[in-house]
Amino acid sequence: MAQKIPYKIYLSEDELPKQWYNVRADMKTKPAPLLNPGTGKPVTLDELSQIFCTELAKQELDNDTAYIDIPEEILSFYRMYRPSPLTRAYFLEKALDTPAKIYYKFEGNNTSGSHKLNSSIAQAYYAKQQGLKGVTTETGAGQWGTALAMACAYFGLDCKVFMVKCSYEQKPFRREVMRTYGADVTPSPSETTEVGRKILKEFPGTSGSLGCAISEAVECAVTNEGYRYVLGSVLSQVLLHQSIIGLETMTACDKYDIKPDIIIGCAGGGSNLGGLISPFMGRKLRGEADYQFIAVEPASCPSLTRGKYAYDYCDTGKVCPLAKMYTLGSGFIPSPNHAGGLRYHGMSSVLSELYAEGLMEAKSVEQTSVFAAAQQFARIEGTLPAPESSHAIKAAIDEALKCKETGEEKTILFGLTGTGYFDMVAYQKFNDGQMTDYIPTDEDLAKGFAGLPEI
Amino acid sequence: MAQKIPYKIYLSEDELPKQWYNVRADMKTKPAPLLNPGTGKPVTLDELSQIFCTELAKQELDNDTAYIDIPEEILSFYRMYRPSPLTRAYFLEKALDTPAKIYYKFEGNNTSGSHKLNSSIAQAYYAKQQGLKGVTTETGAGQWGTALAMACAYFGLDCKVFMVKCSYEQKPFRREVMRTYGADVTPSPSETTEVGRKILKEFPGTSGSLGCAISEAVECAVTNEGYRYVLGSVLSQVLLHQSIIGLETMTACDKYDIKPDIIIGCAGGGSNLGGLISPFMGRKLRGEADYQFIAVEPASCPSLTRGKYAYDYCDTGKVCPLAKMYTLGSGFIPSPNHAGGLRYHGMSSVLSELYAEGLMEAKSVEQTSVFAAAQQFARIEGTLPAPESSHAIKAAIDEALKCKETGEEKTILFGLTGTGYFDMVAYQKFNDGQMTDYIPTDEDLAKGFAGLPEI
Repeated sequence: MAQKIPYKIYLSEDELPKQWYNVRADMKTKPAPLLNPGTGKPVTLDELSQIFCTELAKQELDNDTAYIDIPEEILSFYRMYRPSPLTRAYFLEKALDTPAKIYYKFEGNNTSGSHKLNSSIAQAYYAKQQGLKGVTTETGAGQWGTALAMACAYFGLDCKVFMVKCSYEQKPFRREVMRTYGADVTPSPSETTEVGRKILKEFPGTSGSLGCAISEAVECAVTNEGYRYVLGSVLSQVLLHQSIIGLETMTACDKYDIKPDIIIGCAGGGSNLGGLISPFMGRKLRGEADYQFIAVEPASCPSLTRGKYAYDYCDTGKVCPLAKMYTLGSGFIPSPNHAGGLRYHGMSSVLSELYAEGLMEAKSVEQTSVFAAAQQFARIEGTLPAPESSHAIKAAIDEALKCKETGEEKTILFGLTGTGYFDMVAYQKFNDGQMTDYIPTDEDLAKGFAGLPEI
Repeated sequence: MAQKIPYKIYLSEDELPKQWYNVRADMKTKPAPLLNPGTGKPVTLDELSQIFCTELAKQELDNDTAYIDIPEEILSFYRMYRPSPLTRAYFLEKALDTPAKIYYKFEGNNTSGSHKLNSSIAQAYYAKQQGLKGVTTETGAGQWGTALAMACAYFGLDCKVFMVKCSYEQKPFRREVMRTYGADVTPSPSETTEVGRKILKEFPGTSGSLGCAISEAVECAVTNEGYRYVLGSVLSQVLLHQSIIGLETMTACDKYDIKPDIIIGCAGGGSNLGGLISPFMGRKLRGEADYQFIAVEPASCPSLTRGKYAYDYCDTGKVCPLAKMYTLGSGFIPSPNHAGGLRYHGMSSVLSELYAEGLMEAKSVEQTSVFAAAQQFARIEGTLPAPESSHAIKAAIDEALKCKETGEEKTILFGLTGTGYFDMVAYQKFNDGQMTDYIPTDEDLAKGFAGLPEI
């Protein structure tokens, strides 16, 4: 007989997974290799180790090892805030009057406010192991920067964050959280790098961009002895670390005999979605079970649903390796009215390949409907979600309402990646009725595609 | 043999307490009764029911019932975010190199960001039961207003919040969280009440005060059919609801054979401290166990350590009943440089009586040392604490360092009431080295005492 499912399933510390799962090992067609932008050939470990920590470069290139031990120091840090709760959305089910059963894996119960901490602590650990002084990165909204600052504080590493200037000015509180954790936060573009000075000279008064911040962070890592560059999404190593989300979820589901029919996650670069679905996808790839996977992206930045599957630059500065992925072109920038995050032009190579093979679906949603779902969820389930996470909420509610129509008792699982405490400017826009939607025209997209490299 | 203590102790849903504990029932000397400000006589249930919901007025006056059933609807809401974790501060112990064992009960894992939700949901429930349309309240920093907005959204009650104007303008994000939960937030003083209009006429351009906001909220409740006024601290009913914190903590301690020697909480109006210590104090009062209780308050608003134990007005507007408590006088306002919260002039009557009888100790701490402790804690334990909670952190660290000196293996337990995500202005001040301390002189205090009523 089925046991009663509590509101929140907390696994015990002993049930915390001791290994990450690398879904690439079970993929028949591996994701296409990263290419050296200079030579056009697959990057070697040596080349990649100039930018990333050696151990992380190894993980990036490892398509074969299915399980990788999580070092004890990382496990110890994970125990601060993991296992994270798998929550049964009893209140939401009731409010929607649906026969569906809804679950969400909540990653917001830590000060970074999101799942990003799962990978930042791993990346900081390997940097420390390698004897580095510190790491550099860029941050837009600040979620990744905060997670990295926390991880670096824990290991006593120097943390240099290049924060897009307009965010630096508009999100002073995110900046202060990073500073409280000891990070050095520089508005980008800055006078501290060559590329920054060049851009400032060319575009005086510019408010910056993610692409420029990446370029500054990479330059800072490469030109400073004892530093490496780290990144919070897109990379295969990040999906590996984020598999902790899916592994815990799977353990909890198995323990309580929960069998998800649909698994939903928001998708920007793919770190959360990839982490959540990885072990379930593994079962599907090995023919042990079947699931419907849905990636949800903003209609204003629709890389999976309207992008091209092609090699592209990962950054606007074109200094990083090329990746084959669903992309809108590295020059694509979402409309300024887009407030909901998930604004990356590309998508994880792993997820791109799974999507190309039809193993995963994708849909896009418009932001006013996303914020309406966020508000509804906040009032009913008590947690104020991050705008990014709310894309998954919107899709989960849609699926639950379909079940109401059909009478199906599907089990819907989604990832609630984080909280929206630092996104109140966007919420205010919604509360004031000032939020608008934007869907790029085919002509808008053509401009982005025009910048794709010929490979 | 002692079992291994996990980093976080999560009780199961079944272990959630089903009754609140009313410490007044075990007190030999009861807290002095509230007085009607008009007659000078103890307030009757009828009089109190004009301001508060009838059931809450009953709880306010009940000095005898030790255990009060928690209605199922409230329990159901509690299960959204409770039981809250009791955390072993392994990382902090190691960093301090102390033989002491440190635990904290963390109440920040919910969107209101603090323990305030424990009482707001109870107060909203009784308002709903009474068939009211809504409730009114005031808020300064916004923690209580947020918790009330969440509770009202859950029960479909109207929620009118008078927010001190300077906070309304300086903390737009707190305001937006309340609005997202459907609350009607008015900057105080406002044109919507008689008292507001009067104050605006007398002091054009004033940035408001808590006292004024209380007066507006009470007027709004009394003059609107179907409304009552609710309050988030100081009252005995609030301590009753907050006893859920202490009851869970005691259950977890008993389960894991943890025997706290020292129990520490920050103290503003006393809601968190009173809730945390209530059941432990009950044991002490019944002679079953002994504990050292420490209330920690800011040196700039030292009601227990430097106040008078006397009848005083609970609000600057002098419309609420008089309470006997440790007080600095209702006219006392902490120095503008005070950023750490806990700025109420008085203290819960229950805690005041326990303190007067020597059953509890109190100490005051200066804010730069509080923020230094907060930063240290954030970096070591991974959670960015609210400034209020950080008073308790500072005192816990001090006790742990004493143990390091003496070699004593004391067990120290403190309340971590909430997170500091909406307090980054204060953190920024600290990060920039701009934070200063202030200790009122005896002359400063004398001015506040001069306003005490003659009773």
